[in-house]
Amino acid sequence: MAMITKSTELLKAQENGLPVVALESTIITHGMPFPQNLETARMVEDDIRAAGAVPATMAVIDGTLHAGLEPDQLEALAQARDVDKVSRADMAVCMSLGRTGATTVAATMIAARLAGISVFATGGIGGVHRGAEDTFDISADLAELGQTAVTVVAAGAKAILDVPKTLEVLETYGVPVIAYGQPDMPAFWSRHSDLPAPLSMSSAQDIAKAHRMRAALGLPGGQLVANPVPEEDEIPAAQINPIIAQALAEATEQGITAKQVTPFLLQRIFELTEGRSLVTNIALVRNNARLAAEIAHHLV
Amino acid sequence: MAMITKSTELLKAQENGLPVVALESTIITHGMPFPQNLETARMVEDDIRAAGAVPATMAVIDGTLHAGLEPDQLEALAQARDVDKVSRADMAVCMSLGRTGATTVAATMIAARLAGISVFATGGIGGVHRGAEDTFDISADLAELGQTAVTVVAAGAKAILDVPKTLEVLETYGVPVIAYGQPDMPAFWSRHSDLPAPLSMSSAQDIAKAHRMRAALGLPGGQLVANPVPEEDEIPAAQINPIIAQALAEATEQGITAKQVTPFLLQRIFELTEGRSLVTNIALVRNNARLAAEIAHHLV
Amino acid sequence: MAMITKSTELLKAQENGLPVVALESTIITHGMPFPQNLETARMVEDDIRAAGAVPATMAVIDGTLHAGLEPDQLEALAQARDVDKVSRADMAVCMSLGRTGATTVAATMIAARLAGISVFATGGIGGVHRGAEDTFDISADLAELGQTAVTVVAAGAKAILDVPKTLEVLETYGVPVIAYGQPDMPAFWSRHSDLPAPLSMSSAQDIAKAHRMRAALGLPGGQLVANPVPEEDEIPAAQINPIIAQALAEATEQGITAKQVTPFLLQRIFELTEGRSLVTNIALVRNNARLAAEIAHHLV
Ligand SMILES: [Mn+2]
Ligand SMILES: [Mn+2]
Ligand SMILES: [Mn+2]
Repeated sequence: MAMITKSTELLKAQENGLPVVALESTIITHGMPFPQNLETARMVEDDIRAAGAVPATMAVIDGTLHAGLEPDQLEALAQARDVDKVSRADMAVCMSLGRTGATTVAATMIAARLAGISVFATGGIGGVHRGAEDTFDISADLAELGQTAVTVVAAGAKAILDVPKTLEVLETYGVPVIAYGQPDMPAFWSRHSDLPAPLSMSSAQDIAKAHRMRAALGLPGGQLVANPVPEEDEIPAAQINPIIAQALAEATEQGITAKQVTPFLLQRIFELTEGRSLVTNIALVRNNARLAAEIAHHLV
Repeated sequence: MAMITKSTELLKAQENGLPVVALESTIITHGMPFPQNLETARMVEDDIRAAGAVPATMAVIDGTLHAGLEPDQLEALAQARDVDKVSRADMAVCMSLGRTGATTVAATMIAARLAGISVFATGGIGGVHRGAEDTFDISADLAELGQTAVTVVAAGAKAILDVPKTLEVLETYGVPVIAYGQPDMPAFWSRHSDLPAPLSMSSAQDIAKAHRMRAALGLPGGQLVANPVPEEDEIPAAQINPIIAQALAEATEQGITAKQVTPFLLQRIFELTEGRSLVTNIALVRNNARLAAEIAHHLV
Repeated sequence: MAMITKSTELLKAQENGLPVVALESTIITHGMPFPQNLETARMVEDDIRAAGAVPATMAVIDGTLHAGLEPDQLEALAQARDVDKVSRADMAVCMSLGRTGATTVAATMIAARLAGISVFATGGIGGVHRGAEDTFDISADLAELGQTAVTVVAAGAKAILDVPKTLEVLETYGVPVIAYGQPDMPAFWSRHSDLPAPLSMSSAQDIAKAHRMRAALGLPGGQLVANPVPEEDEIPAAQINPIIAQALAEATEQGITAKQVTPFLLQRIFELTEGRSLVTNIALVRNNARLAAEIAHHLV
């Protein structure tokens, strides 16, 4: 059993020096039902191919870490049950027990680095949960960005999180947070927040140059590119914020805590937006995949 | 003055590829009075030998880091006065000043890694102190587990700590927390808590395999194995929890703060349990030593 | 465009094995108006030369990291406008965009390590901001001390910060905090605080030995030397503490938040002390430069 197996497509791409973009797999196994998850995963992979780059979806299958999934593996994963959701803490255990696991942002960064991939597209990163001043619930994604040299393209942190605290922790860990094409942070479903971004760039080439400079300085961490969802797909802040607030209030009323909070909130926001939150989510992942492909072009 | 000196027993064990278990020394110098501390230390070392492995108690003596103590050194340390309690922050200072210091969990992990030892048995790790949302008092043990590749066998975090927050910080730092033989976290003096463990395993071999896989992935950190105290030795949660609560209330009433809190609580719990807390503490350390020896067998 | 350029003086010093002290540059660009900033910078550099060592002021100029500034570069920087204030998060971006940036404590440590310099003198380090239990605002300087092997000589953390929490975070990150010549922490403008220092030393040689031992142990981080301002220059705690409290109260009343808080507080303290806070600040930086030079002598 090899520790890491690369897809035929990835092997060929790396032999030929083509740009590559890593993708996570929890969106497939834990983010959407079948067959929508499979269709979306294929669409995002195709967006990357259409942009002249090669996708590499990461997953642990029967204990082997796969960098890039063959079409049949992607299909099987989209229908698999009892798939672990692996982060830095449980990745090795999942592999050593021969289990199957989908990779979160942190685990995908680890896998990308092992596979020699520098750019990764996702929807939104994990961060500081609301109420973390009392619960200390902070995603491992933030520490991962502080130590693993992968540029992550996301639409910011998920808007159900405490975004101001997330930005503070990223600053403490020394992570560059670069808003793409605008001075303020995007807010996942919405293009704008009232939070100024620590850094702002409008060119994929500049982002690639900063990635290279970071490596040249011997700094181990990655970069977070906060890419606003296209205007035609966004749910403006004025619409989504009251819905997020309502979902949060319901979670409190109903005593939802710990690991149950995020799925509860996402489900309620899906219902309250009549499905529009998911449409926007898919649009922003595709948008991030395209920008990641462009950055990858400048990193080969 | 050599920086690190290995005991005769450790040198021979490593020459012959025998399993080795590291042990900390603050339990000797700061955990019990003489001669009980010496008797316990010898007993724990003998438990490891009886399990077919070799113990290596860590300590700084007159500025030299010792991996494994000769019998006369152990005896002298058990009676020494003015011994520093060294963690990552003060280990180098203790050594460079030629002082004598007992190693906490963090310092023992550092020493074990330097001595080429992968497994370490202790009582309970440090963690997030109760009230840390206001004091920010969080043990260096947690960050150490995030960065140093040693598997630590403990009966969980000390129950006087804020265990839910401790688990959150370990997740943030990407540390595997593996309950041994049960689905929930043990609670130091008690076998059970109402907290589900992030991971669970029932085989020393599986723990060793996960340790190896973590190294193979290039992840720098260790693992925490949370091993419940044997049933015949436990103080059930229903008995110890009100006592912990009482000790905490007294500490607040009497204005005990900072470094004084932990010794105060342990002393009051000792008194309120009429000494049973110490008996259980010794039993759980011995139980952890045996499991650590078994894991060490699978790591040579 | 070279990534890092050393000054003529630094190159010669390192060729000849002379002691070197790094200096930061935000004090020049963001700490004082021209020409006082230039005069102070020159004075501090001269203090280091008078102590038989060589200064190396760090700055990013037009995208190149300079270790040591030529006299004309120092003069230009002191009058430059739109200079970035760079920390770990934005150093690479500043360089890759060809911009000019002054280095904070974190960035100066990174630059010093790249330039092969082990000691760095500054005024006060960043730390945990007051109110961080709600804002999570913690300077990247602390994590930098946990991972970059540079000994930083400062008059403690800036007294407008939450110093007890700052000490806790440094302990969590495993950073040695060494008060120089006294058992308690200095408090920036004042020699004394009511906080015992984690460690205390009275000899530059001992500090240098501890720095070397830390490296020998393979521990990646630095050390913080907390050096009290000379008695003749201090503003005693009894005088400055009510002024700090007043400035903090005004900030709250006027709704000052986030990045605006620190400049507001320093300006108000300057006004309320009728300029004495700045005089003391300059005196303590010079005092730190002299101690850093002495430590550097023991590190060549
Ligand atoms: Mn969490
Ligand atoms: Mn503590
Ligand atoms: Mn800050």
